[in-house]
This record gives sequence, structure tokens and C-alpha cells, in this order.
Amino acid sequence: MNEPDQRKDVTQREEPGRPEANGTPEAIGTPEAIGTPGANGTASAGGVAGPAALAPAVRAVLDALAEGAERRGGPLPAGTPEELAAEVARELAAPGEDALRRLTALLAYGSADPADPACAAHLHCPPLAVAVAADLAVSALNPSLDSWDQAPAATEMETLLLRELAALVGYPPGAAGVVTSGGTESNLMGLMLARDQVLGRTSGRPVQLGGVPAGGPRARIFASAAAHFSVRRSAALLGLGEDAVVSVAVDRNLRMDPDALAGALRASAGRGEVPVAVVATAGTTDTGAIDPLGTCAALAAEHGAWLHVDAAYGGGALLSDRLAPLVAGIELADSVSLDWHKLGWQPVAAGVFLVRREETYESLARRAVYLNPADDEEAGYPSLLGRSLRTTRRADAFKIAVTLRTLGRDGLGRLVDACHDLARAGAEAVRAHPRLELHADPILTAFLFSYVPGDPARADQVNAGLRRRLLREGRAVVGRTELPGDGPGRVRLKLTLLNPHTTVDQVERLLHAVAAAGQAEEDAL
Amino acid sequence: MNEPDQRKDVTQREEPGRPEANGTPEAIGTPEAIGTPGANGTASAGGVAGPAALAPAVRAVLDALAEGAERRGGPLPAGTPEELAAEVARELAAPGEDALRRLTALLAYGSADPADPACAAHLHCPPLAVAVAADLAVSALNPSLDSWDQAPAATEMETLLLRELAALVGYPPGAAGVVTSGGTESNLMGLMLARDQVLGRTSGRPVQLGGVPAGGPRARIFASAAAHFSVRRSAALLGLGEDAVVSVAVDRNLRMDPDALAGALRASAGRGEVPVAVVATAGTTDTGAIDPLGTCAALAAEHGAWLHVDAAYGGGALLSDRLAPLVAGIELADSVSLDWHKLGWQPVAAGVFLVRREETYESLARRAVYLNPADDEEAGYPSLLGRSLRTTRRADAFKIAVTLRTLGRDGLGRLVDACHDLARAGAEAVRAHPRLELHADPILTAFLFSYVPGDPARADQVNAGLRRRLLREGRAVVGRTELPGDGPGRVRLKLTLLNPHTTVDQVERLLHAVAAAGQAEEDAL
Repeated sequence: MNEPDQRKDVTQREEPGRPEANGTPEAIGTPEAIGTPGANGTASAGGVAGPAALAPAVRAVLDALAEGAERRGGPLPAGTPEELAAEVARELAAPGEDALRRLTALLAYGSADPADPACAAHLHCPPLAVAVAADLAVSALNPSLDSWDQAPAATEMETLLLRELAALVGYPPGAAGVVTSGGTESNLMGLMLARDQVLGRTSGRPVQLGGVPAGGPRARIFASAAAHFSVRRSAALLGLGEDAVVSVAVDRNLRMDPDALAGALRASAGRGEVPVAVVATAGTTDTGAIDPLGTCAALAAEHGAWLHVDAAYGGGALLSDRLAPLVAGIELADSVSLDWHKLGWQPVAAGVFLVRREETYESLARRAVYLNPADDEEAGYPSLLGRSLRTTRRADAFKIAVTLRTLGRDGLGRLVDACHDLARAGAEAVRAHPRLELHADPILTAFLFSYVPGDPARADQVNAGLRRRLLREGRAVVGRTELPGDGPGRVRLKLTLLNPHTTVDQVERLLHAVAAAGQAEEDAL
Repeated sequence: MNEPDQRKDVTQREEPGRPEANGTPEAIGTPEAIGTPGANGTASAGGVAGPAALAPAVRAVLDALAEGAERRGGPLPAGTPEELAAEVARELAAPGEDALRRLTALLAYGSADPADPACAAHLHCPPLAVAVAADLAVSALNPSLDSWDQAPAATEMETLLLRELAALVGYPPGAAGVVTSGGTESNLMGLMLARDQVLGRTSGRPVQLGGVPAGGPRARIFASAAAHFSVRRSAALLGLGEDAVVSVAVDRNLRMDPDALAGALRASAGRGEVPVAVVATAGTTDTGAIDPLGTCAALAAEHGAWLHVDAAYGGGALLSDRLAPLVAGIELADSVSLDWHKLGWQPVAAGVFLVRREETYESLARRAVYLNPADDEEAGYPSLLGRSLRTTRRADAFKIAVTLRTLGRDGLGRLVDACHDLARAGAEAVRAHPRLELHADPILTAFLFSYVPGDPARADQVNAGLRRRLLREGRAVVGRTELPGDGPGRVRLKLTLLNPHTTVDQVERLLHAVAAAGQAEEDAL
């Protein structure tokens, strides 16, 4: 039932000269036997032979990346989405041994490359080469953090990294956390633990995961009108409903109004509701605004609510001596979201979730007899299973740890400061331009602005249109958003400056390109 | 405020001979200006210059991977978790420019390497070199699938890949899906859509995300006693509570008993409860058992419940002509979980979630003015935002697409068959061994067994102990689980064979090592 001929189907196309898979009688597998590569793509990346199998494939990728970037010749490919989609469909339909090289060149050509100075729309950073190379090691070794015996060293590396990041936040010993897929997952985790802790406490039940008490008082979450949409989505996912989120007023630069928060909490208490959580944003997506963290902490404590600080963007300020004071008070949060794929220059995903007190993780604790049996834990085998909403989990901590050790906090802080400088210079250039209008001074590394057309009634149409024009022409990727509220006149353009190698000249040229596209859009109306 | 000297801090340590970051007056950024690398780890991986900056870092990683694997010399490092943790702590404390090489060698040394034939515990596969290389391209370019303008080509690639995978499942046109972090996220998504669809329908409210009706009838989810623990966890996360999950009886090989499901659904209906979902497992974690999919579909339809098929493991059977009949009926599911980081040889993460009817995604639809404004969608810019629970999202589809094109379904099917053959041969070897006892014949590529000690009362202790002994000696990583139920005698060992390059000889040697460790454990009692 396991004839040698059948096995040959898999390995028959081995590279000439490579030893057949076999082992000495003593060893279960010899180095030669591990990952014995075949041609035609069946070689494994792991084992002693893995790096040799990887080398030509990696060379092909690097060549194709360069080829694709050269063909693109700018921040994104010129043309319509339909034109690019047609090319992708054509290329993807063709099988063959050159698929790796061919599709990589296509992916590179068809990328919006955040390493291009004219790609400055989103919290979408150009990753550092050192982080990308570290991520390659993770792909090749494939550790999975749901059990020690799938990730012996990586389990300890994540644990130590999180301890270091907790210290960076200012948490006392006893904090805990996990590496996540990003701010959305981190926000969900914060609100889930908040739900379980606060509803457990107020209902007198033991703290446990889930189970929204039927017929109990209304659970509420308080977040600013500019909080990330994942807050509402999390509330819904958690069974509290989107309308559990009370939207607190913000100022012009999208910072939460502390008096409005105090009022909202008082009114809710008056209605007999349960204040599950206050979500403070440290770095809104559009303006980088940082809510008044100290006041949020005091109000949350007064009302018995959990404080979650969404610092997915603003957490980067912790790396910079100049900007760290902006997020003072973050250490008062019960939980925090950080994203190292924003101001941290990691490839996606590099989210981080931290709680101040490890014991608040209790509702997520999990015993799976095939992953973390009690006797293994007693024997000293640690388990991170109860830290994450995921089971199988890539060791994204590794690239962050390597980057931190290579550059140090200081080195990363210089990159943060460089982007902050760029944003300030860009805002000055907007002010100086007769057809551009700045919404407000940058706080972190982003700012909103708009093109001012001859006919103010067409402002939204022209700004939205000029952005698409720049995309279509392959000239620039600038952001676009809308201010909170209703009615016309709310569309704004956005630059998010996350490339520390960009120069002020390049930002200025980008803004001139925006203005020129605005004029062209007006002319075309 | 943006003095050139300050910017110099970041880029001053450039490689000699590299051009300074500057652009021609016409271009926003010239190729030279993009990702201008500095030494000391500040170089970007993207842009035209990225590949040149990556090349030395990637070489260092490949060298360190080989060095670490050689030092390990087996499936995992010998020693206790404490010893390894101490070495990790020491190495991680040291900063320096050699961090990438040093920590990669440590990660490789400290890995449980699934490319080693003696590493066969979990659904933890040795990734293919071609998939790992493709993943490098994704890390370098860093596309994020939450908006088209962060991932122009990748958006289309994921869309086309999912169409292809939906066809593989047997779904008619009109299916939709998303690439996920794994089966846990996919199961959560299936149950979330089930909750919103079924509770929306039965409560007469519009379908919307979340909001468990207070005081409504009890919502129930039906899954076998051997279903993945993420089903219960998802129910809790979704606010239904863990005890919303009704545990349906299984047979000896952990396959759901269809009569028990029918009875449970009837009893629940008799109590006036709402049957939100039936979860059928196609490939249980421990035995690869496949629930009776056709019967599950008929019963779910009869009771108005959503059918979710968790095929995270068994979905691999779709690649093999020989094994595909085992999962017949999967096309009847309302939603499906697949995991290409199991029987698909991808590095983590490569989960897939599919729904049969795109319109059932409606409760997750999302409009974010900075990501998918309506006028951009009308202008032809597609958005995958409403497909995922995440916002920022790595293009994990790319490596799957490259692998499929390189090997084809047939090539991947041969790898599946090779692992299936290995499992059958391993089970035969267990049967032939006087001290080993097979629990049941393998269905996919895994089987349970145990070492039979002289004193049967010590079976659990000896089996658990021999596994830790093999780990400590660095000789093997075998799985361990417990059969459902209570009381002693339920501990079983497990081999999960996911390495197509492993030989039958190596599996036999692994089993002999298990038996020898069992004897040693008995001797040490």
C-alpha cells in the first residue's frame, strides 16, 4: 500500500547528484534526508538542505522585484483598474515553472509601492530590508506559536519582546500581551476582555468568555467620532451591537472632547447602563490626533469602565524622545493596541496587543489537549495559546525583535522624527501654495488638506476626481477621506508620510502634482 | 523646522558610491531616490533599489538558516525549555548590526522543524521553497488588501484565486471569500455570518452584524465532540456563550454520529431554540475524521440552520483524485474553512474562508471614507474591505497562487497522496510493533496510537512522559492528545504526516524511537 514506485512520483525529478532520501540506521533522518529537494517546486524550505533550495528561488524573486519596479517606473502602474485586472487575469491563467518569477514581476509592477516618495496615502509603510529578510527566516522555518513544540525559540522570543514593549509603554511588571494581525484584531481583543471583565463583574457571574447576559442592562462603549471603524465592528462582532458604541464629539483636528466624554458617561450612568469600555485613540487614522489620555483614564476609572488605548498609529511616538510626550498617560490604559507595520517599518502583519495586568486575560485562557496539556505545562513547557484569538500563528515577533536590535529605539526614533519633519514641511508647503488649503497642523506624520477649485460647490467632486486622476496616470497615491458630519464640503486629501528616505523636495513636488491634477480636473469638467 | 542636517541623521550612513536621494525636477521621485538605502538597517526593501538592499540581508539569512539547522542536527534542539529560554534571553539582550544573522541562526537552531522527518506532531507543514520565496516578494512590496490603492494587482490576484478555490470546492458561480489567518478566523467568520443571517431572519430584523437579541429564544450551534475548540471559542466571542454549542456524539474515529445530530436538532427545536448553525468537520485535528457532510447538509436545511464545514485539514483532499471523494458534499455548505498552511505546504498564514452565496456577506459590508468611498467604487476601484474581519491585511493569496501555478492541482495532489501513503505505512508499522497499539486506521495523513506499558494503569503517564523525553533529547516531535470523555486511559500519541519527502523507513525509525522512549520511561519510573 506504500509502494516505492508511488513515492517516486513525488521525488523522481530530483536534481542530479543529490543524494536520495535515506538515513543511517541510527538517525531518524540524516541532514541529507531532510527536505530533499525535487525540481519542479517540490523542494522544502526547511532543514539543512532548505537554504540551498531557497537560494535560486530567492534570486529569481529579487530579480523579478527589480524588473517589476523598473517597469512600473513610479508609485503605481498607470491605467485603469480594469486594465490592470485584465493583465493579472491573463498572467494568472498561465501555468508553468516560471510562475514564481513571472507573477512576482507582475506583483511588483502592479503594486502601490510605499517606498516611492509619491506613495503617501495610507498608514502603509515601506518595510525595512532587515525586517523583510527576518520575515523570510520565519517563512522558511514556519514556527507556529500555538504550542511550544511548534516554536520552541520563537515562543520565548515573543514573550521577551512583549515584555520589552510593555516597558516601552510604561507598564509595570505583570503586563502581558500578544502579537496580532493588526490594530483591528488588537482593538477586538481589548473590547472582548473589557466585555468579559466588566459584564462578569457587574452581573456577579464568574468572568468568562462571551455570553452577553440576556435582559441585563445595556452595555456601552465610548469612543470618539474619529475612532477607528473597527471599534464599532468589534462591538457588533462581540454581540453588543454597533449601536452599543456612543460617539463622543471631537475638535477640529479630530481629538476627543473630554467634556463631551464626561457628559456621555454621566448620561449613560443616569440611564442605568453598564459602561464597558472607553476607547481612546492615540493617533487617529486621518489626522494623528491623540485623545486626552489622562482624562480618559480618570473618567474610565470613575465609572468602572475598561480603558483601551488604540495607539496603532501613535504608538510610534514611544520610539521618539521628541514625540513621546504626546502619548503620556498611555501607561494608564488597561489595554493598548500598537502596530509595528505603521510607524515601525515592518511588513504586514506586526500588530501588538498589551494588557496592563496579565490576569485580565483569564477569559481567553484555553486548554486544548493536543496543544497545551496540563502535565506538559507542569513539566515546564510554556504555552501562548491563551494569549491569542488565533490558533496557528506566525512568529511575527521575530522581525520586530531583529529590527529593534539592529536599529535600537534610538535608530527607530530617528526614522519617526524624519517622518514628522516631512509632515511639518509638507504642511508648510500646503500653506504656501495658493490653490491648496491645510486643514490643520500635523501632529504625527500625516495631515489633511484640499485643493481649492474655482467653483467651491465642486470642491468634493474635484478633490475626489484629482486623486483618481493621479492614480490613473500612475503619478501619485494620495489619501482621501471625509470629515465627520453630514453634507458636502467634507472631502479632504491626505498625506501620510511614513517613508523616512523621502526628501522635502519630493513632498513639495508631490503637492505640486496634486495642484496640477486639480487644475486638470477643473478643466475637464 | 525641517533642516537638512536633521534629515542627515537618518541617511548619513549611506553606502559609499550610492547616489544621494534626489529627483529630477520632472519626476516626484527618481528610481535612485526610492528607498535609498543607508547602512545600519535603515534601507527600504521596496522600490527599484530595494532588491539590491535586500540581497546581502537575504544571503545572511540563508547562511544563518543553514548554520542553525546544522547546529540543531535534528527535529528540535535537545534540552529543557528553560535551557533554551536562557540562551534566547542572552542572545536577545545583545544589540548590534549582526542581529539579523545571529538571531536567525538562533531561531533556526531553536525551531521544531517540520522539514525534519522526525517532526510529525501537528498540522504544521514544511513549507515549499517556492511558496517561501513568493512570500518574500509580499514582505518586500507590502501590499495591504484593505484598499485597492495599497494593493492594485494583489486585489485582483486574491479575487481570482478565491474564484478558483471556490470552483475546487464545487461551488457554483456567485461564491465569494477571503484569505484568512487560519481555520480559527475562518470558523469565526462562518459562525458570525450564520448568527447574523439566521438571527436576522428569525427575529424579523434586517440582517446586520451582531446585536444578539436580548430575551429572544436561545441560539444554538451543533458541532461534534471532536470539532475544533475554535467553534466554542467563536460562540463565546460572538456573544452567544460557549454553552450555545451542543456537543454531538462521535464514533471511535471521532466522526460525528448522524443520528445523534438529528436527535440533538429535534430536541433543540422541541425546546423552541434557534438552530443557528451546524458545524461539520472535514478532517478532525487528531484523526482526520470527516463528518457525514451530505447528512449534515440535509439536516441543516431541514432545520433552517447554516452549514459551516471546517475543512481546514480535510480540504487538502480536494487536491487528490484519490481522496477527493472523502469530502463529497462539501459543496453543499453555506461556508467553508480551508487551510493551505496544512495540506498545501504554505508558510503560515494561508487560511481561506468561502461562502457559497456572496450576498450572505452583507452583514460584514463596510464603508470607510478613507478606504472605499462610494464614488471610487463607482469609478471602478474594487474593494475587499467588506470581505475580512481585518483591516490591514497581508497578501497571503500570492504564495498560494504561485504554488498552484508552479505545481498545479496534480502536483499538489501527488504530495497529498504521498503523505496519505506514509500515514498508512506508519499505521501498518504500529500494528506490526509488539509494544505499540493503533487507535484506528488513518483517514487522511494522521493517526493515533499509544505505547503499551507493562503496567496498564500507568499508560497515560508513560505516553505523556515518553513524548517529553523525545523532546528533551531532541530526537522527535510526536503529537499527544486525549480521546473525548472522562477518566484515565485517554492519552494517545499522534503522528501527523505532512512531509512528502519523508520515507517509510524514516517513519518506521520514528516509531521505534517512540517505543524505545516508552521503555526508557518505564525503566525510570
